[in-house]
Amino acid sequence: VTLSGDARMGIVNPIGSDDVAFTSRARVKFTLTGETDGGLSFGAEFRADNASFDAIDAGDVGNGGAEDGVAGNVYISGAFGKLSMGDVDSAAKAAVGNVDAIFLVNATDMQESTFIAGGTKESVLYEYSTGSLGFYVSAGQISNDFTNTPDVTATPLALGVKYSTDAFTVALGYEDADDVGNTTHLIVGASTTFSGVTLKANYGTAQSDIAAVDGGSQFALSATYTADALAATVFYTDDEELGGSKAYGIGASYDLGGGAKVVGGYGKDKTADDDTFDLGIAMEF
Amino acid sequence: VTLSGDARMGIVNPIGSDDVAFTSRARVKFTLTGETDGGLSFGAEFRADNASFDAIDAGDVGNGGAEDGVAGNVYISGAFGKLSMGDVDSAAKAAVGNVDAIFLVNATDMQESTFIAGGTKESVLYEYSTGSLGFYVSAGQISNDFTNTPDVTATPLALGVKYSTDAFTVALGYEDADDVGNTTHLIVGASTTFSGVTLKANYGTAQSDIAAVDGGSQFALSATYTADALAATVFYTDDEELGGSKAYGIGASYDLGGGAKVVGGYGKDKTADDDTFDLGIAMEF
Amino acid sequence: VTLSGDARMGIVNPIGSDDVAFTSRARVKFTLTGETDGGLSFGAEFRADNASFDAIDAGDVGNGGAEDGVAGNVYISGAFGKLSMGDVDSAAKAAVGNVDAIFLVNATDMQESTFIAGGTKESVLYEYSTGSLGFYVSAGQISNDFTNTPDVTATPLALGVKYSTDAFTVALGYEDADDVGNTTHLIVGASTTFSGVTLKANYGTAQSDIAAVDGGSQFALSATYTADALAATVFYTDDEELGGSKAYGIGASYDLGGGAKVVGGYGKDKTADDDTFDLGIAMEF
Repeated sequence: VTLSGDARMGIVNPIGSDDVAFTSRARVKFTLTGETDGGLSFGAEFRADNASFDAIDAGDVGNGGAEDGVAGNVYISGAFGKLSMGDVDSAAKAAVGNVDAIFLVNATDMQESTFIAGGTKESVLYEYSTGSLGFYVSAGQISNDFTNTPDVTATPLALGVKYSTDAFTVALGYEDADDVGNTTHLIVGASTTFSGVTLKANYGTAQSDIAAVDGGSQFALSATYTADALAATVFYTDDEELGGSKAYGIGASYDLGGGAKVVGGYGKDKTADDDTFDLGIAMEF
Repeated sequence: VTLSGDARMGIVNPIGSDDVAFTSRARVKFTLTGETDGGLSFGAEFRADNASFDAIDAGDVGNGGAEDGVAGNVYISGAFGKLSMGDVDSAAKAAVGNVDAIFLVNATDMQESTFIAGGTKESVLYEYSTGSLGFYVSAGQISNDFTNTPDVTATPLALGVKYSTDAFTVALGYEDADDVGNTTHLIVGASTTFSGVTLKANYGTAQSDIAAVDGGSQFALSATYTADALAATVFYTDDEELGGSKAYGIGASYDLGGGAKVVGGYGKDKTADDDTFDLGIAMEF
Repeated sequence: VTLSGDARMGIVNPIGSDDVAFTSRARVKFTLTGETDGGLSFGAEFRADNASFDAIDAGDVGNGGAEDGVAGNVYISGAFGKLSMGDVDSAAKAAVGNVDAIFLVNATDMQESTFIAGGTKESVLYEYSTGSLGFYVSAGQISNDFTNTPDVTATPLALGVKYSTDAFTVALGYEDADDVGNTTHLIVGASTTFSGVTLKANYGTAQSDIAAVDGGSQFALSATYTADALAATVFYTDDEELGGSKAYGIGASYDLGGGAKVVGGYGKDKTADDDTFDLGIAMEF
């Protein structure tokens, strides 16, 4: 059992507010690792703030912990790959990922693409990599990203594949939730780095009978420049047709060393016609 | 302050469901120990998932922790014995214990005997051992095992005595909750190990004016075979007359080393006419 | 990330009850520290029991942690002083503090003076010390001490200054919450130690348009005698005009070494005409 932590302090003007407020947070993460006699690695991780979520279900006090995917995950890995259970990403998200953004708080995760699978309930993710190729398969729960009324009995399946070289990465993800309005989602992502600049782009297209979603496409772009202690990012994203919003933002961080950074960002949600900014110090321990 | 942890991942078909579901959990346990100048040991232990239970009482946020017996316990020990407070067992349960079962999840604890005392509120347990004899005295709260509407103001008393040799153990427990329907409970337990097989048996008889219980008897039996990395258990239990159920089960585990085990079990609740099975990996850190 | 902990076990007759009850509690505290390349110190601290408070807001599960001042605090310090955010005291309380009391439990904090600022929501405290002088400035939220219906949008400001020598300490605090009934509060405190006795005294006077408070004055006195392992304290306090109560109490502790103490106290709330006592063992790990 090892411990790590993070914290932040600063100011924020969140989406949905005209006021600037103070913000601070501290968290601790538990990392549990072991190895069997046969050489399989196993372990788990969760945060102190997730530890007792289940305690809220008054009838379920005795169970608690990072249980049933509410937070954290448990894994076993070896030559066969890695099998994780709990609050894990869908295979599509694990392969494609999201474009970059820099904020101190970013409560709305506005740069993120919409994925169908991977909510906060029990999910399973299998990963296998060989050379430049990574393969991902998952079964899980419908994501809150995709619909505001997730069907908790749905178990969307997802596939992902990623090809990485030193110069670029391309990835493809497919999600299938046929028990939730015959919903399917295909997403591709690519990233490349040159001259200190990292470009990332995602494009996805979904079919769905859910009235509020009705299918459509999404894209997201980011450019991040890093030089010594400085990092700066701009992004533009549009997943409005999939229940998200059009948004753009710009942010920067300056590394003070020892795990502390000055971090600030500005974001504009064009769909909601609202903006957010934050500035402060982010810490890693 | 030292840390340990446990985790599990696998599949489960729980009581009350016809579906097989994924299950995972990770927990961390805090163990606090100290010693006075006079040589008394003291300490406490609780789990991360129990740490903030009291936070749910919105008016009681500042207190929190493993408080007032909701979880964990605090103790002091020396030549006089050991005095523990918090979420401790009744003296009868501490002396007699339960028969064995092997499951990955076992949410219903179906092999467990019914004890009157020892709920999840503040209780006190005193233990003293000398040679082969152990004595137990406790005062605490009525258990959820015994009645679905526990009287939180009741403070059942309990006594226990255990005699252990290398070959066998016999134990006797008595619980008295005269402020809850004049309820009393006498329970005896025995266990013995030979040729790699451990047999355990409990028999209890209770008197009570509570209509739903009305007194009666209970018994539980288990046989566990261990050989190197393998362990296998069968059990049969009947505490139907005390508000529980008739049940039997079989389970096995195989130790992979390093703290990981493959574990699976099958259980049948005859009273509810429902069964459960689970299979997966249990981990200790 | 370092861990420390505390625990207690004993008996208590709390305010509002005629019964003596068992009490126990165990807690763990996380302390996170770091240093930038430029020599600034930064860190955070919170307790395991505070870790997941935000999980109660079901819509806010992902955030959690010692967030937004609900518990714990985050700081950065250097030659410029120390800036803390989170669940911090008002500048007036940081400078003047409270008189002493010894209890095992002391759930009502009856010896404490009333301060306007410093609730359990996000606050900011800046501290700077030079030689014998310490300066404090804070902005935060109205305190629960002062009114039972705190205005969560209020952001009272506070100032404090403290002068300390080996022989005595004097401190002055001023709190201004003009957006809550034009409330202001001026408080002075002094302490001195001689012959093993520490005397502390606070006197404060407040103006307010809030009907329930209506302004008035408060005072608090304590005398603590320490000799080797023994400490004994008496206190008298009257903040009845500011929504508190007249109270007095006496308590003592005896250090057993290794972090354990026998602790007991008696307190009388004259306004409520009720008393409390407790006795037990307090532990530090």
